[in-house]
Amino acid sequence: MSAAAPHVLWLFGLPSAGKTTLARAVAEGLRGKGHTVCILDGDEMRSGVNADLGFSDADRSENLRRSAHIAKLLAGQGHTIIAAFVTPKEANRSLVRGILESTGVRLVHVDCPLEVCVGRDVKGLYAKASQKKMEGMTGTQDPFEPPVDVDLTIRTHSTGVAESAALLLDLWGPS
Amino acid sequence: MSAAAPHVLWLFGLPSAGKTTLARAVAEGLRGKGHTVCILDGDEMRSGVNADLGFSDADRSENLRRSAHIAKLLAGQGHTIIAAFVTPKEANRSLVRGILESTGVRLVHVDCPLEVCVGRDVKGLYAKASQKKMEGMTGTQDPFEPPVDVDLTIRTHSTGVAESAALLLDLWGPS
Repeated sequence: MSAAAPHVLWLFGLPSAGKTTLARAVAEGLRGKGHTVCILDGDEMRSGVNADLGFSDADRSENLRRSAHIAKLLAGQGHTIIAAFVTPKEANRSLVRGILESTGVRLVHVDCPLEVCVGRDVKGLYAKASQKKMEGMTGTQDPFEPPVDVDLTIRTHSTGVAESAALLLDLWGPS
Repeated sequence: MSAAAPHVLWLFGLPSAGKTTLARAVAEGLRGKGHTVCILDGDEMRSGVNADLGFSDADRSENLRRSAHIAKLLAGQGHTIIAAFVTPKEANRSLVRGILESTGVRLVHVDCPLEVCVGRDVKGLYAKASQKKMEGMTGTQDPFEPPVDVDLTIRTHSTGVAESAALLLDLWGPS
């Protein structure tokens, strides 16, 4: 592992863009390289640690602040962290990058056209939002700001999971 | 590792009772047995993830709620978690036990007489409290409730670190 290899990989993008799937695939690859890996997944974080938070700007920011600090703590113990969070705004991404600067964090945009994400709708959330049964759905109700400052973009509409994971594993050098 | 072996060890007790020292010693022993270990230490949690919280009853409870959920998340990924938190009240301990029930959590009282803890005063907090430069110091300003429901008690005043760590490592069966 080179000195420049990251201890934290932060995957961000629209709901159903493929963040969780990719996080699991990369985690498996890293374990194969001898890393101990912790996955911090937005949905899981919100069902437990951050169950007290909603989807206002302030709560989204707090969700990410706590999660980034957890990643930093674990990275400091020698683990490699794969985080998967929508992280909808540039301000959110700056916050995450600031907290995790010392970990060599890489911010990776898991990019997929909105209409494809809506078609996948893995958790049925886009449907729920379109029926007004929920609020704050990123992409259709709340904005997802196009990223400006990004370390890598993975286009899951045109690149398969194995190939995408391989691109990310390259961040840790050749196998 | 037997089915009954814990995925989370929760060390609690007065400031300067020896929780962090013991957590590190047990973590090292577990790594030697092939575990991947995450340490969640109260002081570290409060300097980052939970920097928004103070020492009111509600904030102490929230500190422990979040930390227990982080432990649960990581335990679910196959890691072994050593947590070290004052956890001053029985209500706090019940909260932790409830969240972590599925992990086989063991609550261990790191027991040491208050006067010995004050004498050690590793972080100079008892002195600060006695000079009224801080509030909410458990033991001298805020109560530490004697535990009723505890899985194991380690008396760090009379038992050395290596021996104490060995007693805890026995929870995972003979070496």
